Amino acid sequence: MSAADVRVLAFDTFGTVTDWFSGISDAVRNAVPDVDAAEFAREWRRRYAPILARVESGELPWRGLDDLQRETLADVTRAFGISLDDTGAEYLLGAWRTIPGWPDSAPGLQRLKSGYTVCALSNGSVALLTAMAKHNGFGWDFIGGSDLWHHYKPAREVYCGLVELMECSPAEVMMVATHQHDLDAARSHGLRSAFIERPDEWGGAPKDDSGSPHNDFHASSLLDLADQLGV
Amino acid sequence: MSAADVRVLAFDTFGTVTDWFSGISDAVRNAVPDVDAAEFAREWRRRYAPILARVESGELPWRGLDDLQRETLADVTRAFGISLDDTGAEYLLGAWRTIPGWPDSAPGLQRLKSGYTVCALSNGSVALLTAMAKHNGFGWDFIGGSDLWHHYKPAREVYCGLVELMECSPAEVMMVATHQHDLDAARSHGLRSAFIERPDEWGGAPKDDSGSPHNDFHASSLLDLADQLGV
Repeated sequence: MSAADVRVLAFDTFGTVTDWFSGISDAVRNAVPDVDAAEFAREWRRRYAPILARVESGELPWRGLDDLQRETLADVTRAFGISLDDTGAEYLLGAWRTIPGWPDSAPGLQRLKSGYTVCALSNGSVALLTAMAKHNGFGWDFIGGSDLWHHYKPAREVYCGLVELMECSPAEVMMVATHQHDLDAARSHGLRSAFIERPDEWGGAPKDDSGSPHNDFHASSLLDLADQLGV
Repeated sequence: MSAADVRVLAFDTFGTVTDWFSGISDAVRNAVPDVDAAEFAREWRRRYAPILARVESGELPWRGLDDLQRETLADVTRAFGISLDDTGAEYLLGAWRTIPGWPDSAPGLQRLKSGYTVCALSNGSVALLTAMAKHNGFGWDFIGGSDLWHHYKPAREVYCGLVELMECSPAEVMMVATHQHDLDAARSHGLRSAFIERPDEWGGAPKDDSGSPHNDFHASSLLDLADQLGV
C-alpha cells in the first residue's frame, strides 16, 4: 500500500470538502422561516442521489444538476406543505454555490497541492464548482464537473474521464471522499481511494464514517491526509 | 464599451501568458547543441497553426496536441537535417509544459482573479495546461483545454463550449490574447476581446502588436489590463 505512484487527487465536494448541511439549512432558515430547516435540508439532500440515478439509468435524459435540484426542491416543498416562489427557489438553488468549506479544506488543499494535482470531481457543474471554489478559496488545479461528461457519479465516465484528461493511469489517481460508494466505484475502475471522516455531514444525524478496509487511506481531515501523504 | 457585464476572462496561453520562444529555444539548445535554436523554435511554432487547421478542416481526425507537435517536430528536424532520438523528441515535447510565464502573468492573473473568473482557453490539453499552471503559479479558476471539446481554436466549439460551461452569455466572456485572429474568432461568436502586446513573442522576430480597434481593451501586460479593469 504505497502512495508513491499517485499523482492526482480527485475530491468529492458536497460533504467531503464542503459542509452542505450548514449552508443549506441556513439558506432554508432565511427563505422559509416557519419550517424545520435542518430536516428540510436533509430531506432535500436525501432526494439528490436517487434523481441522479434516474439520469444514469436512462429513465431521464441528461440534465444539469440545477435542473434536477429544482425538481427535488419542488417535491420537498410539497412534502412539507409549504409554498416557495421562484425567487425563493432560485435563492436556495444558488446556496449550493456558496456552501462553506470545512475548516480544514482550504488549508488542506493548499498543502496537498504542493505534492499532487488536486482536482474537484463532483456531480456539481463546472460553474457551480468554480463559484464554490472562489467563495471558499479552494485552489483546485482542475475542476471536473459533471457537465464535462454529461454523467453523474458513480458512472464510469466520470472517473475514467478525469483519468483521461490527466493523461495518466487509473492507479495514479486517488479518489478522496466521505462516501464509501463513491470510493468503491472509483476503485472498481482502478483508482485508489482515501476516506475522509465527516461525522457532522448530516448536521447531527447519523453518518457512517467507518470506511472500508480496502481504502488506501483513512483520514480525519484533509490536513490529516496531508500528514499521512507527507506534504 | 463597458466591461461591466464581463464576468469571465478567457486567456490564450502560448504567447499571451507564457513565453514559448524562450522555453522552447532553451530546450532545443539543451537537446540539439549544433542547431540555430532560435530559428528551430520559430520554425516549429510556425508549423503549429497549420496542422491544427488540418484537424479542424477534417483532413486529419482528432488528435491531441502532443501527437500533432510530435509530427511537426519530425518535419522540422528533417528540414534542419538533424537527427533526434525518441528521448530527445519527448524532452522537447515536454518543454511545452514548463515554458515560463511572462513576468506579469502570475501577478496579473492573481489581481484579475479577484474580480473575474479567470480561465485558460487554449489549444493545449488539460494536462499540459495544468502542468504549465503549477510550474508558473497561475491560479486559474478553470482550465479549458482543447481535449474538453476535441476541437482547436479558432473553432466555434471552443469559445462557445467555455461560455456554456460558465453558464453565462457570450458577452459576459472576454477573450484575452496576443493574436488578433483568436480575438476575431471569439468576437464572431459574441465574446468580448482584449489584446495583450507581446512584442517579444517571436524572440526578436517581427510580431504585429497593433491589435484591431474593434477590441474592447488593448493592454501592454496583464497588470495593465488589471489596471484598466480596475481590479
